Amino acid sequence: MAGSSFGNIFRITTWGESHGKAIGAVVDGCPAGIPLTEADIQYYLNLRRPGTSRAATARQESDTVEILSGVFEGRTTGTPISMLIRNTDQHSGDYANIAGCYRPGHADYTFDAKYGFRDYRGGGRSSGRETAGRVAGGAVALKMLDECGIRITAYTKSIGPVSIDDDPDGYDEAEIMRNPLFMPNKEAAARAMAYIEQMRSMQDSAGGIIECRIDGVPAGLGDPVFGKLSASLAQAISSIGAVKGFEIGEGFHAAVMRGSEDNDAFMPDGRGGITKRTNHAGGILGGISDGSPIVFRAAFKPVASISRPQDTVTRDGKAAQLTIKGRHDPVIPPRAVVVVKSMAALVIADALLLGMTSRIDRIRDFYRR
Amino acid sequence: MAGSSFGNIFRITTWGESHGKAIGAVVDGCPAGIPLTEADIQYYLNLRRPGTSRAATARQESDTVEILSGVFEGRTTGTPISMLIRNTDQHSGDYANIAGCYRPGHADYTFDAKYGFRDYRGGGRSSGRETAGRVAGGAVALKMLDECGIRITAYTKSIGPVSIDDDPDGYDEAEIMRNPLFMPNKEAAARAMAYIEQMRSMQDSAGGIIECRIDGVPAGLGDPVFGKLSASLAQAISSIGAVKGFEIGEGFHAAVMRGSEDNDAFMPDGRGGITKRTNHAGGILGGISDGSPIVFRAAFKPVASISRPQDTVTRDGKAAQLTIKGRHDPVIPPRAVVVVKSMAALVIADALLLGMTSRIDRIRDFYRR
Amino acid sequence: MAGSSFGNIFRITTWGESHGKAIGAVVDGCPAGIPLTEADIQYYLNLRRPGTSRAATARQESDTVEILSGVFEGRTTGTPISMLIRNTDQHSGDYANIAGCYRPGHADYTFDAKYGFRDYRGGGRSSGRETAGRVAGGAVALKMLDECGIRITAYTKSIGPVSIDDDPDGYDEAEIMRNPLFMPNKEAAARAMAYIEQMRSMQDSAGGIIECRIDGVPAGLGDPVFGKLSASLAQAISSIGAVKGFEIGEGFHAAVMRGSEDNDAFMPDGRGGITKRTNHAGGILGGISDGSPIVFRAAFKPVASISRPQDTVTRDGKAAQLTIKGRHDPVIPPRAVVVVKSMAALVIADALLLGMTSRIDRIRDFYRR
Amino acid sequence: MAGSSFGNIFRITTWGESHGKAIGAVVDGCPAGIPLTEADIQYYLNLRRPGTSRAATARQESDTVEILSGVFEGRTTGTPISMLIRNTDQHSGDYANIAGCYRPGHADYTFDAKYGFRDYRGGGRSSGRETAGRVAGGAVALKMLDECGIRITAYTKSIGPVSIDDDPDGYDEAEIMRNPLFMPNKEAAARAMAYIEQMRSMQDSAGGIIECRIDGVPAGLGDPVFGKLSASLAQAISSIGAVKGFEIGEGFHAAVMRGSEDNDAFMPDGRGGITKRTNHAGGILGGISDGSPIVFRAAFKPVASISRPQDTVTRDGKAAQLTIKGRHDPVIPPRAVVVVKSMAALVIADALLLGMTSRIDRIRDFYRR
Repeated sequence: MAGSSFGNIFRITTWGESHGKAIGAVVDGCPAGIPLTEADIQYYLNLRRPGTSRAATARQESDTVEILSGVFEGRTTGTPISMLIRNTDQHSGDYANIAGCYRPGHADYTFDAKYGFRDYRGGGRSSGRETAGRVAGGAVALKMLDECGIRITAYTKSIGPVSIDDDPDGYDEAEIMRNPLFMPNKEAAARAMAYIEQMRSMQDSAGGIIECRIDGVPAGLGDPVFGKLSASLAQAISSIGAVKGFEIGEGFHAAVMRGSEDNDAFMPDGRGGITKRTNHAGGILGGISDGSPIVFRAAFKPVASISRPQDTVTRDGKAAQLTIKGRHDPVIPPRAVVVVKSMAALVIADALLLGMTSRIDRIRDFYRR
Repeated sequence: MAGSSFGNIFRITTWGESHGKAIGAVVDGCPAGIPLTEADIQYYLNLRRPGTSRAATARQESDTVEILSGVFEGRTTGTPISMLIRNTDQHSGDYANIAGCYRPGHADYTFDAKYGFRDYRGGGRSSGRETAGRVAGGAVALKMLDECGIRITAYTKSIGPVSIDDDPDGYDEAEIMRNPLFMPNKEAAARAMAYIEQMRSMQDSAGGIIECRIDGVPAGLGDPVFGKLSASLAQAISSIGAVKGFEIGEGFHAAVMRGSEDNDAFMPDGRGGITKRTNHAGGILGGISDGSPIVFRAAFKPVASISRPQDTVTRDGKAAQLTIKGRHDPVIPPRAVVVVKSMAALVIADALLLGMTSRIDRIRDFYRR
Repeated sequence: MAGSSFGNIFRITTWGESHGKAIGAVVDGCPAGIPLTEADIQYYLNLRRPGTSRAATARQESDTVEILSGVFEGRTTGTPISMLIRNTDQHSGDYANIAGCYRPGHADYTFDAKYGFRDYRGGGRSSGRETAGRVAGGAVALKMLDECGIRITAYTKSIGPVSIDDDPDGYDEAEIMRNPLFMPNKEAAARAMAYIEQMRSMQDSAGGIIECRIDGVPAGLGDPVFGKLSASLAQAISSIGAVKGFEIGEGFHAAVMRGSEDNDAFMPDGRGGITKRTNHAGGILGGISDGSPIVFRAAFKPVASISRPQDTVTRDGKAAQLTIKGRHDPVIPPRAVVVVKSMAALVIADALLLGMTSRIDRIRDFYRR
Repeated sequence: MAGSSFGNIFRITTWGESHGKAIGAVVDGCPAGIPLTEADIQYYLNLRRPGTSRAATARQESDTVEILSGVFEGRTTGTPISMLIRNTDQHSGDYANIAGCYRPGHADYTFDAKYGFRDYRGGGRSSGRETAGRVAGGAVALKMLDECGIRITAYTKSIGPVSIDDDPDGYDEAEIMRNPLFMPNKEAAARAMAYIEQMRSMQDSAGGIIECRIDGVPAGLGDPVFGKLSASLAQAISSIGAVKGFEIGEGFHAAVMRGSEDNDAFMPDGRGGITKRTNHAGGILGGISDGSPIVFRAAFKPVASISRPQDTVTRDGKAAQLTIKGRHDPVIPPRAVVVVKSMAALVIADALLLGMTSRIDRIRDFYRR
């Protein structure tokens, strides 16, 4: 229960430290019969791989995944899928100066407080590197969603003060994969890149916002009260390192809206079903999906590892100054886009499975086949 | 697993519909030996009770709690604490006109999509009334936190456009319990009340933001990766009906800050320990409590039940117009303040118990007594 | 997590002490649309009710159940079903002499060791009375199994040295409900009743074995490794007070069989499917149901409360002699038959729901409807 | 939730098929600070390794474990411990004849029924080989129990008709590690080996019983109702492949005992504490440990893979005869002794952690240090 597993039926367990031998993930509860290859997973791992642009650390990690179990003759078997990624580019020496004191904005102090000591090499388990396990597991979930006609689109909405909303008509989905920041607006991406360069030159760092849209989710997923789909997404996304805020639909803006503005009118969809005229709700009503696209955002704080000197204390409580060496991303969102997508996929995959069990008529039909 | 339980060790299960016979909660995993009476619970239930001001519905619910188990001679026994609240003031007739069509902004449609039909009386399980169960369970958690020196303060930060931040020096904790909106600023409370009256006169409704601060949490609670304390809080708070956003510390504002601004420098606390010069992080680093106050906010959408006519569809998919009758709060936050506090208490109580298990030296000591 | 909940998707939480105000159960995760009335539940509660024969305690408990939530217009709604049973016939005074010392064979000492004190009235939470909550929840599960064509038959196989196997051809299912011991053999029931009378006259008590058969379980339920259906049944049945052994199919006898004896040959079932020539396995292979009847047995120790003087110690560790007063069953199995049936139903209901999620082709079909 | 994880706080997840690339285990929730090396784990893996005697298969598996995470400078860090064992000696060709039909007594048919197809090589996930993951995880738990003064002794009690009880005074603990059957009686081991040879020569197989004793468990572990320590042990042990029965203390024999025989009288232990004159209960009362040794037994069916021809059906439902080739153990218990020990260790480790949370006075003390 120590926090390395997520999901109820479709369940991922991740493991591994930044500078240990390897990192990995085990997915249990994945249905049998889904086509799955190492290339499927590698595709997503490559999207979070550093070293691809100036917006990311210069570390060279190949992040090559190996599937060790749970796949037979190209399809999932229903048994746990174990995925292994060897750590290859480890400069543990870089971290010598942080072994004895606490980096501001990092988990060094809290790990020591919790465990009595810590693996100080590169943050150990609190490193952003743990997200590779999430992405490996998310890739499996995404394959399952493919089978069910569900598609997830995630992108960088803003970096520091630069937002795609600066141009209200500027959303260009095709642009997302064309720039290293995964922003759906070419011009905003260019300005954001300039801002990142500025931060880097100032030995500083930037934060940002990632937005995610999930299309094709059937109405009826999620549960009332504590098991709301929105609550599961909030947990999933807030568990990503550096996330400080989560909002769905109108989010914090809803707090200043009037009910008559925020309510989405229902209307016939012209095909015998029901749809909504607007989607202020972000696709979830009362915690249960309503068939509209699910739309949410996550706020990432600026990267804590900055290379200018900072005040801190040593492990034995003495004041000190720390200059962090090593190679660090100046901003998190671009690489975290695929992590957000992965976590969203894990939530929806789990909700799809649980969603089969809510009506006795359908259960009876299922077993009568 | 259908979403009515929350927590790992300290675990609450709630049940009950708005217009059923009763609602209630079962708390399992509460440690033995905590002083607990029905009055302890009633105190918090009264804070969420409607009918106390113009800011709340005119329904008269006595919400009298009865403890049915788990307490013996005034102390918890370690076995499940079952709490019962009979529903008394039910005007089911008011809801006749919503049985056949879907209220915009409500869970009517999603419940039908999920279950095939629904208890349409007052929202059934999706009613805000389910939060009475949360508050009953939260009251037990709050008693446990008392024993451990942990104190939770929650209040309304804004209603619609009226915020306590309009006066930067205006935070007055003593004021919270003096106005029916639970705002820590007398003047803001007055303006907010006027805004609510305006909304009511316009047959409209308002949203708002609740802020919560938790003092006395020891460093080291929460787990890395998926079990981050921030992620558990995000889930807990986002599971409250009408919550559309959650943020911790600087929250969404962190996305536009620079690392050098957002990082909290560590410093000796003068008593042999460690503290932080600022608390942008909101008391959690890497998902684990750092000993500073935990500070978070939740955004509530405006009340969906407004009395002006709205476009919708009937259960069989035909366009319709709906005028909602019945008595409804014009704004959620004031009554939800105690709900937020309760959910926070449940998260921290659970984290305290799990937090005992992280170090073998302390486990050995524990069993050697 | 303190042990009062059972099941993954179909999940029961029970609460209540022997001499508290009430006992009850909450079932969460029950599918919507199942016909359910209080009479359905009362039927099973009546089967475990004491006071119906010389084989049971003379206590008069009406055990009247009230459904408080989760049912609307006669059908389950998919939301938690809360069931309440008031305690009415409490002779707490009978237990005064056991407050200060530990009854042999009871949980008095272990509760004190765990919690520091205990509700000593009638065993509190460790009383057999807690099984009323299991039966209430099991009744809901049995209604669900009805819908899926699954039938559970439980009965007393032996009491003390008297077994239905004494007459190899003596199994008479119709007899089960005709005698107060629920034995499927009239003559064995008579001999068992005589044995019970003998034990009672000797101020002593008897043990016994309950057997259970589940018909109609489709092949494919249960999971490999830790989630074996047999392991879930073992846990469920072993969690009933006084159970000291559990076995499935040939059980302990299998340990002395040869592989060629124990293996069940497969054969075509003549309808295009597959069946087994024998059922030594008891309906489960590799932890997964094989479509044959599931057959298991549970061994109950003799009732610990006997009225002859026994050696024990007081709470402060001094040697003492104890004579237990009060009214106690001389044997457990007859009343536990419906408890075993209930626990089996809870396991199978949960496995049915989880069993829907194992194949992507069926998941896709489910959502394409 | 698909059955590959076990435990609540101390939690193991295993993965891997018999003839896949590797098998392994991830332990999450293990406390920080426990000394742990690969040699610690290898020691236990070697005990279940085949090829060491005529009682085991001739397969040569080196079963070399690699720790990939969760250990730093020789101690556990509190983060997940990932352990990898590459599969090396795979004769997949041996299994060609079983791809198309169902081996009696095996999970071939039930896996197909559940998943639609299966990894037929050597049983895949249903192979006894999965127990290597349990042993790796159990080794970590055993290291934790060492720190807490808890010791587990497991041994073969009987093989087929040969039992150590044939000589009532014959229990010789030192003998356990001296014979390849792990029987605590030299003479019984010799007779059992002869019986195994006889079965082998008859192309048949044997079953057996394993007994396990746990010393040093403090009173107060386990929970009332569903979380009984006995129920957790029942689940854990019954989840081992081929286990058909589980009993604790007097077990099935208790069903024929009288209360006055079975009850264990309490007595002062002479050191201010309490002990029991006998231990018919097997160390658990009301589901909670009583401080006496915990004693339980598991019945294993005979090995299902026998080399004589057997009747079965093909995947498409046609009658067939099958002769199983390949190398198989003629009996399970000797190699399963360490598996039973491992599962027991996992249960006790988990119960120790959960057991810290039952009393507010101790929780307060814990956090006040």
